[in-house]
Amino acid sequence: MINPETTFLFIIEVIGTVAFAISGIRLAAAKSFDWFGAYVVGLVTAIGGGTLRDILLDIPVFWMQTWWYLAVTGLSLALVILFQKILVHTRVLFIFDTIGLALFVVIGIQKSLNVGYPMWVAVTMGIITGAFGGMLRDILLNNEPLLFKKDIYATACFIGGIIYWIALGAGLAMPWPGILCAATVIITRILAVQLGLSLPVLSEAFTDSENTPHPSDHIKS
Amino acid sequence: MINPETTFLFIIEVIGTVAFAISGIRLAAAKSFDWFGAYVVGLVTAIGGGTLRDILLDIPVFWMQTWWYLAVTGLSLALVILFQKILVHTRVLFIFDTIGLALFVVIGIQKSLNVGYPMWVAVTMGIITGAFGGMLRDILLNNEPLLFKKDIYATACFIGGIIYWIALGAGLAMPWPGILCAATVIITRILAVQLGLSLPVLSEAFTDSENTPHPSDHIKS
Amino acid sequence: MINPETTFLFIIEVIGTVAFAISGIRLAAAKSFDWFGAYVVGLVTAIGGGTLRDILLDIPVFWMQTWWYLAVTGLSLALVILFQKILVHTRVLFIFDTIGLALFVVIGIQKSLNVGYPMWVAVTMGIITGAFGGMLRDILLNNEPLLFKKDIYATACFIGGIIYWIALGAGLAMPWPGILCAATVIITRILAVQLGLSLPVLSEAFTDSENTPHPSDHIKS
Repeated sequence: MINPETTFLFIIEVIGTVAFAISGIRLAAAKSFDWFGAYVVGLVTAIGGGTLRDILLDIPVFWMQTWWYLAVTGLSLALVILFQKILVHTRVLFIFDTIGLALFVVIGIQKSLNVGYPMWVAVTMGIITGAFGGMLRDILLNNEPLLFKKDIYATACFIGGIIYWIALGAGLAMPWPGILCAATVIITRILAVQLGLSLPVLSEAFTDSENTPHPSDHIKS
Repeated sequence: MINPETTFLFIIEVIGTVAFAISGIRLAAAKSFDWFGAYVVGLVTAIGGGTLRDILLDIPVFWMQTWWYLAVTGLSLALVILFQKILVHTRVLFIFDTIGLALFVVIGIQKSLNVGYPMWVAVTMGIITGAFGGMLRDILLNNEPLLFKKDIYATACFIGGIIYWIALGAGLAMPWPGILCAATVIITRILAVQLGLSLPVLSEAFTDSENTPHPSDHIKS
Repeated sequence: MINPETTFLFIIEVIGTVAFAISGIRLAAAKSFDWFGAYVVGLVTAIGGGTLRDILLDIPVFWMQTWWYLAVTGLSLALVILFQKILVHTRVLFIFDTIGLALFVVIGIQKSLNVGYPMWVAVTMGIITGAFGGMLRDILLNNEPLLFKKDIYATACFIGGIIYWIALGAGLAMPWPGILCAATVIITRILAVQLGLSLPVLSEAFTDSENTPHPSDHIKS
């Protein structure tokens, strides 16, 4: 904890966790959830991705090793209850959320490499760590996952992961792949939002297919 | 099995499993699910919480060690098919459900402590064991989780867990923390329902925020 | 890979994975998901069941051991983007989907037996391997699981599993229980769709129970 680099990463991770938790709590509030429900949605948003990652990697689940993830989510709930009017109208949250996202991707990649998985698994785990919590949040709230429609959120994680891969392949020493990856995630996401970029949508040819959802529907047609 | 205490706990757990399964099966029936779908929803309601707990604790999943959880869920389905009119209008189910909930919380806490986790993890696992199955049920049924809006269901688990913690800290011998915890869950839930208690809702300041769901929406506003 | 039997199974598994992935991607397209969202839904449909199986069995997750599951899903996405008009109106997909389903059930059963679980767990894992991916797909798409209403999809898995069990109990040598199981799944599903068979629905007595969803609602009534 006295190590300045560790302390810096710790502070960034707290900020990212708070930003993710607040995003979940605010959406829960919009659906009139009670305090407990809002806490759960915030917690799931903040730790859901890392939890799936740790289960898939078969390593101890990170938030069960220290109580501060639960505590920081409680702090986030208190912040929303006390300052909700202010928080709703600020773009600071977007910056926090993006910084947290970038760090979550790097953590997911590094944990996977530590356990001995190849780089393509690590990139997948980076994306899961960054993006799965928000997907769970939308499932809990009974929304269609925003992730899939509005944002190049997960795509930013993917591009960041590729940069990590290239940097590692190019022989860069250890903090650098992570730093370049995080910077790529942040720049990609900010650029995408500023420029209104999004991925192509698959809809056009399927406007009449909502009624024909599964192969089994076609065998008789 | 000849041990009277074990037999008593076993009977209670069967009752709790049946009550949880029936709650899932009845909601599935209200959505016109077929028998298989109703069975799955009942099973997920009854074993979902314990399954997530065992995966998080990285211990063998409880319902894969003995076939009776699957069998008891089948029995619950048969009960609903045969006696649905009667079951719908009784409050006996509420009592069973509450007793089962209380036992599930105690089991979740004790399993976590057995694996060596600290008390705050154990309380979390107690809540997950008791409340996560119902959350999964609502997700499968494509409902917004009732848990988060109507009931102090999970809150009763939380208060029971705190009582377990205090009892253990006060040095009470082994069955007592569990008994006090279970009694607390039961009394809290019954009192809450009788008195119409519920947690504060987070909605007021957010009535206009349904259109502003994510930080990324604000960067341009 | 030079072993002809292994190569045959590998080809079948690729076909099944493509069929499952396409089913997910097409439904995502119907909801206007972007390419990434469609990829995720396709991937989850194809690997979701096997992932839950491997987590429950506590063995390494299959798609993290070789990159081709991710690659084949990417190929499926490309196929849908390039040939969607054609793919939408063919019943070939149903055949692929059914063959894949049959193989997935056999794989789930054999993996469970390899780890030492009894036959009733293996049958359950066969059903999960075959049917859970489609359930996850419907949850991600915020649909009510089709599985529970329209199809004897999971029931075909169940019947196939029972046939495996009987064949094994009758002392048949090793490839035969799997072959009989797969044939049963395929025949059952095709027959069921051709004849319009479905399981009984649980709805009648519950038309008025949508307003009475949980035991706790009744304690005061």
